[in-house]
This record gives sequence, C-alpha cells and structure tokens, in this order.
Amino acid sequence: MTMDIVAYLETKKALIDQHLVQLLKRMEAPDRLKESMLYSVEAGGKRLRPILMLAVVEALESKTEYGLQPASALELVHTYSLIHDDLPAMDDDDLRRGLPTNHKKFGEATAILAGDGLLTFAFTCLSQAPYIDAKTKLWLIQELANAAGPSAMVGGQMDDLEAEGKALDLIALEKIHQKKTGRLLEFAVMGGATIAKADRSTKDTLQLFARHLGLAFQIQDDILDIEGDEAAIGKPVGSDIENKKNTYPAILGIEGTKEQLKAHFEKALDALKSTAIQHDVLEGIAHFIIERHY
Amino acid sequence: MTMDIVAYLETKKALIDQHLVQLLKRMEAPDRLKESMLYSVEAGGKRLRPILMLAVVEALESKTEYGLQPASALELVHTYSLIHDDLPAMDDDDLRRGLPTNHKKFGEATAILAGDGLLTFAFTCLSQAPYIDAKTKLWLIQELANAAGPSAMVGGQMDDLEAEGKALDLIALEKIHQKKTGRLLEFAVMGGATIAKADRSTKDTLQLFARHLGLAFQIQDDILDIEGDEAAIGKPVGSDIENKKNTYPAILGIEGTKEQLKAHFEKALDALKSTAIQHDVLEGIAHFIIERHY
Repeated sequence: MTMDIVAYLETKKALIDQHLVQLLKRMEAPDRLKESMLYSVEAGGKRLRPILMLAVVEALESKTEYGLQPASALELVHTYSLIHDDLPAMDDDDLRRGLPTNHKKFGEATAILAGDGLLTFAFTCLSQAPYIDAKTKLWLIQELANAAGPSAMVGGQMDDLEAEGKALDLIALEKIHQKKTGRLLEFAVMGGATIAKADRSTKDTLQLFARHLGLAFQIQDDILDIEGDEAAIGKPVGSDIENKKNTYPAILGIEGTKEQLKAHFEKALDALKSTAIQHDVLEGIAHFIIERHY
Repeated sequence: MTMDIVAYLETKKALIDQHLVQLLKRMEAPDRLKESMLYSVEAGGKRLRPILMLAVVEALESKTEYGLQPASALELVHTYSLIHDDLPAMDDDDLRRGLPTNHKKFGEATAILAGDGLLTFAFTCLSQAPYIDAKTKLWLIQELANAAGPSAMVGGQMDDLEAEGKALDLIALEKIHQKKTGRLLEFAVMGGATIAKADRSTKDTLQLFARHLGLAFQIQDDILDIEGDEAAIGKPVGSDIENKKNTYPAILGIEGTKEQLKAHFEKALDALKSTAIQHDVLEGIAHFIIERHY
C-alpha cells in the first residue's frame, strides 16, 4: 500500500465526517436522541462504504460533491445497522470501535430509537440530495432500501442469528455475507456508478468488482477476529467463536481462508482492470481492505 | 354515524389488507422474518391512516388505485412503529389488538428486525409505487421520512419516554402527540392531496383538518384507555396510568378532555367544510374517529 492511498482515505474520510456531522447537527430532534445518533456516527470507523462511493464517482470523472450526500446516507444506514446489531437481544456487544456500544451508553430504548432515527433520516437525506436528478434519486432510494431491507441486510442478520450454533457450508455462509454486508457495499459502488452515469457495460463490470470486494472484506473481518489486535479493532478478538458465529476460518481453517481472500481479491482486481476507468484509487482501496489491521 | 361510513371503512380496509398481504407475500425474505412481519401487519387494526389517504384521493376526484401503494407504505411504517414501541425496553406491552405482541410471539431479536424490515420495505414500496410520477414519489418519500423520523415520530417517542413520571402541561403534551402520531396522520391527508394534485389553498385547509383530526384521534385514545372495553381495544385499560404516561385526562380530567375532543373535532369539520371538495366521507371518518370504541 502506497502512502498515496492512505492520504486519499484520510482526505475523503474527513470530507464525509464533516458532511455527516453537518447533516446531523442541522437535523431537528430531541437533545438526547440527537446526542445518541451523533455518538454512534462520530464513533467513526473507516467510512469505507462512503469512500468507495466517492472513489467510483471520481474514477468515472464525475464530481466528488455529487456523491457526498448519497454516500453520507449510506453511512447513516450502516451506522444504524451496527447499533441494532449490538443490542442485547441481538449480538449483545458492549464495545464497538473501542467505545461503549450505543445501548451501553444511552440505554436500550434510546439505542433502538437512535437506530430507527438514523435509518429514517437516511431517506430524508437521499430525497434531498443536491445535484442529483429526480430519476437518479429514486433509483438510489430504491436500491438503498433493497440493499438494507428484508431481502438483503435485515434478512442476512436474521439468517445469521438463526445460523448461530449450526454448522453452515461455504455456499450458505457466502449467501449470508452477500446479504448482510455485501449488498450495502455493492450499493456503494453501483450508487457511485449511477450518479456518474456510467454505461451498462461499465456498471456490470463494477458490480463484479463490488461482489468480490465485499466477500474479501468480510473474509478479512473473520481473519481479524482471530489474528487481529484488540486495541486496533476496538473489540475483543475471538468474539465470533464465543458467539458461535459461522465464519470462514471455522469452515476452511485459517490457511484456506487466506486463500479465499486472495482469490476474491484477485477477481475484484481483474474486473477492475477490464474496464476503461481510472482504476488506481479503487485498486488502492481494495489493497487497503484486505491488508487492513482494523 | 351512518351505516354508509361503516360500509365504506370495511370496503377500503379490505382493499388495503389485500394489497399489504400481496406486497409482503411477494417480498423476498427469510421465512421467519417474513412470518413475523406478516403477523403484525395481519394483526390488522383499523387501517385508519391508509383509509384516510384513499378517502382524500377520492374526495379530490382522483383514482383510488393511485393511492393504494403509498397508503400501504404508510401502514407498514405505522406497523413497524407499534412493534418497536411494544418492545420490553420501550413500553413493554404483552398484548396488541388482543394478540401477543411481536416480541412475545417471535422473541426480541426477530421483533427488532421485523420492525427494521417493515420500515425499510416501506421505502421500497414507495419508490416502486405505480401510477405516480417521479417528482410526486420523491415528495412522498421525503415527507414520509420526515413524518416518521427524528424530528417527528421517532422524536415524539423519545420525548414520550423521557416524560414518563414527569407532569407535562397541555402545550407540551400536544407537542408530543403532534410529533408521535399527528405527523403520520397528517402525511395520510397531505399525501392523498399531493397524489390527487390538489391546489395550494385546498392543501392548506386539508392540513388544518388533519392537525385537528390527529389531536382528536389521540384524545379519544386517551379516553378509551380509561373508559374503553378491554375486549374491544385488545389491551388492558388503565395501562397509561400504570406506565405513568402523560395523558389528556391526567391534565384536564375526563370532562375537560371530552370538551377538548369536541373542540378539535369541530375545528376539523369547519376546515373541511370550508373547502370545495366532496366532504361527506371525510366527515364520516372524522365522526368514526371520535366515536370509536376501539
């Protein structure tokens, strides 16, 4: 990974952080609710999904600012999903990114409402996104709702909870990941492509890139839960094993998992290189995703 | 109340029930999640919000079917809010419409996801609503997100939780109701008006009608919690007092509350009669709302 991509990620993260905080500070809401929503949004994270959207917009030679509000809406949805996933009735996690989870800090009722509020506010933000024409906005709303809804993210979380303690095979595990995290990452890429008005063939290739990248992302997550550094990932390692989660290492062993990671990474890069778009930044992001330590 | 309005409500309820079930049955989702979503949607209720939207569409001489999908999306959002409000961390209710609440039947994790799924799926349905042009769809999405979001419904639920055990005055109580239930009811009316392409002045008057009707609706709810029949309302009477909820009777006494109900009802009717639209059905619905026993 060159220093360039690290600088790129930092610059875009700052841009997104600033826009997110601006959106939330301007939002009308009871103090405690707003504080709780801001808490989880400001707890940060890598902002990989929104950065990916901006990077695709730029790779297709459109303007960064066109993607800023849709990218922020996507991050709001991602943040809501983390708050609800952490709840006692779900994964029951006390720590997220090194900080107390939302319900540990604000209590369960406020955490549920903060999640509901972020999800709903994301659609307010999308419907009011500047620069974007009505048809594209409707497409973004429909695809974000699909990617986050019962057939994808929410359904994947349901599958994941039901699979706890049951041994899945690789195909079933990939299906869950595709729904639970893959579709939102795919929305980042395809949303960027649609905002930048990419042609059909470029979109198809970018979708292939997104799918392999999404799986690579999830596999690296599973590896970090075993080999990661607690301080860097901000939560205890081994929590997947403790929660009887189905993971790649549980099915393939750690070496087999690393081979899968490499395979998906290479397929993602192959797809990228087969397009005529500027691929250096997107390639850098893919490298970052599989080499990250947090 | 004439028999006509009862027949009208039954006919429209059947139409909406059918459309809701069709939408959910066609939706792709894990079996348990879909079952849980369908359970709460089929548990029914009066469907007053979607019926109100259809009635406004018809009163403005537009076509019923134009309003059907938006009205169903509205009911999905209402249903999600009931599932989350009933959760142990929130109002902790065991019964809803005479049946076990969603979390009592399916467990908390599934209930949280069913609520998240219904909210998200509502935006899928709105974005795919037939007959509606892109500009109107975007308006509906924006307004539904606003009415259900942190500045309105979710914020009102937060206010309500924070006010438990504290004595509010009438102005503070009305503000909570306006946010928690009023805005969604207002969306029913204004959504219908926008679908039917009402002019500005008709919209303004209908908004006044919706605001007074919304308050009348909430006041009648408070009265039913004291004077209602458990079998008819489907949950124990007196639960507001037990939960230390702020209510109209707690502030105004039961007679003062009934005077407020009458005042808002009359203002709603005055607004309605000042428009040139066909107001008999809407008037009938208003009568039904304040005279209902459930």
